[in-house]
Amino acid sequence: MAVNPPRLPPPLPVPGFRIGVGSCGVKAPELAGTRPDVALIHALVDCHAAGVFTQNRLRAACVSLGEATLQQNGDCIRGIVANSGNANAATGSNEEGWARAMIAAAAGAIGVRSEQMLSASTGVIGEPFPIDRVEQGIGEAAACKAGWQDAAEAIRTTDTFAKWTSRRVGPYTITGIAKGSGMIHPNMATMLAFIATDAPLAQKQLQPMLRAAVERSFNAISVDGDTSTNDTVYLLASGLGLGLPPMGKTRTFEHALHEVCRELAQMIVRDGEGVSKFVTIHVTGARNESEARHVGRTIATSPLVKTAFAGSDANWGRIVAAAGNAGIDFDPRRISLRCDDVVMLERGELHPDYRDADGMAVFARDEFSITLDLGMGQAQSTVWTGDLTHDYITINAEYRT
Amino acid sequence: MAVNPPRLPPPLPVPGFRIGVGSCGVKAPELAGTRPDVALIHALVDCHAAGVFTQNRLRAACVSLGEATLQQNGDCIRGIVANSGNANAATGSNEEGWARAMIAAAAGAIGVRSEQMLSASTGVIGEPFPIDRVEQGIGEAAACKAGWQDAAEAIRTTDTFAKWTSRRVGPYTITGIAKGSGMIHPNMATMLAFIATDAPLAQKQLQPMLRAAVERSFNAISVDGDTSTNDTVYLLASGLGLGLPPMGKTRTFEHALHEVCRELAQMIVRDGEGVSKFVTIHVTGARNESEARHVGRTIATSPLVKTAFAGSDANWGRIVAAAGNAGIDFDPRRISLRCDDVVMLERGELHPDYRDADGMAVFARDEFSITLDLGMGQAQSTVWTGDLTHDYITINAEYRT
Repeated sequence: MAVNPPRLPPPLPVPGFRIGVGSCGVKAPELAGTRPDVALIHALVDCHAAGVFTQNRLRAACVSLGEATLQQNGDCIRGIVANSGNANAATGSNEEGWARAMIAAAAGAIGVRSEQMLSASTGVIGEPFPIDRVEQGIGEAAACKAGWQDAAEAIRTTDTFAKWTSRRVGPYTITGIAKGSGMIHPNMATMLAFIATDAPLAQKQLQPMLRAAVERSFNAISVDGDTSTNDTVYLLASGLGLGLPPMGKTRTFEHALHEVCRELAQMIVRDGEGVSKFVTIHVTGARNESEARHVGRTIATSPLVKTAFAGSDANWGRIVAAAGNAGIDFDPRRISLRCDDVVMLERGELHPDYRDADGMAVFARDEFSITLDLGMGQAQSTVWTGDLTHDYITINAEYRT
Repeated sequence: MAVNPPRLPPPLPVPGFRIGVGSCGVKAPELAGTRPDVALIHALVDCHAAGVFTQNRLRAACVSLGEATLQQNGDCIRGIVANSGNANAATGSNEEGWARAMIAAAAGAIGVRSEQMLSASTGVIGEPFPIDRVEQGIGEAAACKAGWQDAAEAIRTTDTFAKWTSRRVGPYTITGIAKGSGMIHPNMATMLAFIATDAPLAQKQLQPMLRAAVERSFNAISVDGDTSTNDTVYLLASGLGLGLPPMGKTRTFEHALHEVCRELAQMIVRDGEGVSKFVTIHVTGARNESEARHVGRTIATSPLVKTAFAGSDANWGRIVAAAGNAGIDFDPRRISLRCDDVVMLERGELHPDYRDADGMAVFARDEFSITLDLGMGQAQSTVWTGDLTHDYITINAEYRT
């Protein structure tokens, strides 16, 4: 089940990058050969790189290692290796060694230094990491005869469709892939996204650009309010390594990067576990964007709001009650609320023309928007979320069985 | 459905209080006479009183009025009037007038001043409050021929059983009633609790006692992480008004009050919407109690943890990942985890004797405990919660229909 999964045109290859995948049965040996579960993004030249990572205190070793690698060698990154099927998180004293071994195997397979290789893992937490099988998968992947679609397939866990998108920015290309379906409340949530471009941008330009784009995309979605231990977004730029002249004005590139991130983030919500509706929550009239986003995320994580979405119940009381829980100061007498074009509340009063049936008609759609105006200022933010359904319970009560 | 609802002995009457109920069909006129939905607690003498209220920004008018009344007349309170079926919250410019009218009707019916009357409402948010019917219900209630059980019945909404408890403290009595089933993440959550005692205690003693008891009871439970607009706990003490000599040492009384609050709070979890398991979460080894409680509440609100409970899946990885989201600094290599008496993790490592089947056997119980030791200090806290089941979705996707 997914809400209107997009029909995606093939992703564009990015100069300077080759892709490989392996199928080694990370989750269970008998799955070897059935579907790809190891992805290798091989940068043929030194890349400048940026990353944004989970805020969960229980970070997986691959996250900590990746962050350190970016700090030390963020201008000469040569690749990303990733696996699905096992997150190598909460695996105790073996965790870091396994993560290092995975990185070393990938670096060795393509002839670069371990310090130039980033890694990511996603899947079940707390189970021993099958490093032998992963190394075998990396061996397969090193042939690099695959494409971005295959890499997007390889990082899927409970995702029902593979997620990618591409943009052209003048002569340059941006291609991104992502995975994520549950434990999605990025800040970051078990989501991975890898974005590559041949734009000639340096690390110090890339990092703030990525941070800004993530705030308004991956950090503006929520499926279930749980933040994972392994969330990672990486952005690699090969342009300088390819000898292209440094990019001057970056505004158009930033805009395209933001679009790539937002599109991938929205795909994650559409494919959210059990999600049957795609809901856009606009919070306007806030004092600043951060407060607007916080109110939006609080609405997006309320189980009562999300079950009302599931039940096509235009229960606006739950929406404003959830907003009241965000810990943000606002005056209930100044708030206004609408769903799509139906005005429900205006400055704290039920709109005289509002009929429950009109709200119900909107909530019955598989995509609709909620706009809450706080009546305080000019700032706004948009958050994307889904509903909370029986399928979410079924999927997550039975995930390991 | 409720998890092992307690067989409750009848509540003890409290000297100085009379109880009345009315059945006026607050939710729908045709329900009049079918079940009580208005409760009146009539204090025959001036009571000292304390209250703890929702932290939701969107407070109902009855909450704001009650808080002001306590501040001004907390030493001469004469009653509490409450209704179920309509929360009179988010009802716009009429809200305060309706709340005041309800208070005035109750005060008039028993011959006291409006400034001595507290009120509470629970039920659907955002629908016009049927003040005429409520006034009629108050008229019935004013005869005060009922008991605490009847009042506990009258404040039920989706509760499957009425909640009360009593304690004796020396010559004194404490009796409390409560309601709450959904939108339960007290701080406070749609829960109401009214506690009466004839102990001779003054307002300035009662307020800190109630605050402390609520922290470790109503503020230590979670059903769905949603905090309501109307949550209220009131404590009324008639002893001084009855002419009893002021109580000196209050330690025994405080202990009993804490037990009353904890017992009522646990009943709310047992009766949580869709809850099929009652789970006690102990967080130990914290630097302070507040951090311990915050970690416990974060675990208790994680949908992935709660669905694992529902699925009898001893998915300890989700528990430690949820703990990592509490925003509290701890070292993953020092944490230990067990369920009931089965040790899962010890200082960050999977215990060598741990078998998944042992954990599964515990998680299959309808009541069990989780103990997470953070390995940092001596402080601890206990939080009670339930699982997240299909029934929760069914109840809340269809609440208004």
